Amino acid sequence: MASAKCVAKGCAAPGPVPSGSIRLYSMRFCPFAQRTRLVLNGKDIKHDIVNINLRDKPDWFLEKNPLGQVPTLETSAGEVIYESPITCEYLDEMYPEKKLLPDKPFGKAEHKMLLEKFSKLTPLTYKIPMGRLKGEDVSGLHTELTQKFRELNEHLAKKKTKFFGGDSVNMTDYMIWPWFERLEPFELKDCLDDAPELRKWVKFMSEDPVVKVSGHSVDVYKAYYKTYLEGKPNFDYGL
Amino acid sequence: MASAKCVAKGCAAPGPVPSGSIRLYSMRFCPFAQRTRLVLNGKDIKHDIVNINLRDKPDWFLEKNPLGQVPTLETSAGEVIYESPITCEYLDEMYPEKKLLPDKPFGKAEHKMLLEKFSKLTPLTYKIPMGRLKGEDVSGLHTELTQKFRELNEHLAKKKTKFFGGDSVNMTDYMIWPWFERLEPFELKDCLDDAPELRKWVKFMSEDPVVKVSGHSVDVYKAYYKTYLEGKPNFDYGL
Repeated sequence: MASAKCVAKGCAAPGPVPSGSIRLYSMRFCPFAQRTRLVLNGKDIKHDIVNINLRDKPDWFLEKNPLGQVPTLETSAGEVIYESPITCEYLDEMYPEKKLLPDKPFGKAEHKMLLEKFSKLTPLTYKIPMGRLKGEDVSGLHTELTQKFRELNEHLAKKKTKFFGGDSVNMTDYMIWPWFERLEPFELKDCLDDAPELRKWVKFMSEDPVVKVSGHSVDVYKAYYKTYLEGKPNFDYGL
Repeated sequence: MASAKCVAKGCAAPGPVPSGSIRLYSMRFCPFAQRTRLVLNGKDIKHDIVNINLRDKPDWFLEKNPLGQVPTLETSAGEVIYESPITCEYLDEMYPEKKLLPDKPFGKAEHKMLLEKFSKLTPLTYKIPMGRLKGEDVSGLHTELTQKFRELNEHLAKKKTKFFGGDSVNMTDYMIWPWFERLEPFELKDCLDDAPELRKWVKFMSEDPVVKVSGHSVDVYKAYYKTYLEGKPNFDYGL
C-alpha cells in the first residue's frame, strides 16, 4: 500500500511478488519514487508498494538493490530494476496498453534530452531551502532556478501544447512533476513569475486525477521537509 | 570524414545533411563521441562526420546544440540529438536492421543500469593521470578504480558470456569500450590485475573490426592526452 508505514532494518521481508503484479519499493515523500508511482497509476498497472526507511534500510532490501535506492521495482520473476527513468521506461515498454512515451525514435530522444536537462535543475530545489536554513545567501541559486524555469517555459511556448508531450499527459510531464509539486512547500513559487506557460502547465497538472492521488498537501510536505532539513526525516509523517 | 581536421569559430558551416544520410558532430579523441561512431559503424549507417574544435566552437554549431557537446547528431530533416546514450539509442531504434540493444524490456533495463553504474567510473580514468601530473597522491583513486573493475568482472563472470550483452558485441560493449582503450595510454592497465574476465573481454573487443577502426594507437593517444593534460588539447594531432 502506498500509505503503509516504512520498513526498517530487522523488519521481516515481504513475501514473493504475486504473479500478474509488480512491486515498487518506495518512500512516500521521495520525488524520484513518485515518478514511478505516477507511471504505475497513469497506466493502471496492478502493483503493491513497500515503503523503505531510507536511513535504516533492511538487509534484504540491500540484497535486492545494493545501491539501496528507491524507486526499485521487483517483478514476479525476481527481476530487479532501479534508477527512476529506467523504471519508468521499463514499465512503459512492458505494459504497452497506454503508452506514455512517443513511438517515434526522435520523439523518445526529445523526451530523454529534456529529462537530462531537467536533472541538472532538481538539486537546486533542495539547495535553496537547505541554504536558507543555514542562513546562507541563496539569491544566486534562486536566480539560477528562475532562469532554468524560463528556459522550460520557452520550450513549452514553442511546442504550443498543453503538456510537454502534446495535448494529454505524457511521460515527460510525469517525470518532472514531483519537483513542481514541492515549489510551494519550499517557498519557491516566485521562481515561476517569469514563466506563464509553465504556470499554466502546473495548473493543468494539478487537476490531473493521477497526479492528485500521487502527492501530499502543502502542509504535509512542509511538516515532512522540516524533519528532513533538520536531519531526522520522519518517513511516516501523517500516518 | 572521421579523420578531417576540426572546424573552429569563424569556419563556414557545412551544407545540409543529404537525404538518406546522417551527420555526426564529433571530436577524434572524445570517448563519448567514440560511442556514437562505434554504433554508426557497427550498424553500417551511412553518415558523415564534422569534427568540432571544442575550445573554440563555431557559432553555427552552438545554434544547433546550445550545450556545445559532442556527440551531436543531425538528420536530413534538421532534427538534432545529443547526449551519447541518447544518440546511440536513437540510432538503434531508427535503423533497426542490426539491433544492438536487447528486444526485451528487462534486457534494455539491464543495459541502462550497467551504463548508469559505469558512468560513475569514467571520471576516475581522467582524475588519475591529472592528479599524477600535479604530483598528487592518486593511490586512493587507483584503489577505487580497481574495485570498480572488479565489480564489472563479477558481472561478466556471472553472465558467462564473451561480451556484456551475450556472445556477440552489443550496445553495452560499445558504450563502455572507449575508456578501456585509454587504460594503456593512461598507464592504468594494472587496475585490471584482479579482473581476469574483464581482461579477456578487452582482448575480444580489441579484435573486433568495428572497434579496430574507431580508435587510435597507444602512441597517438599518449601524445594527444599530453597536450590535453597540459591544457592545450591538439584536436588535430596526427593529421
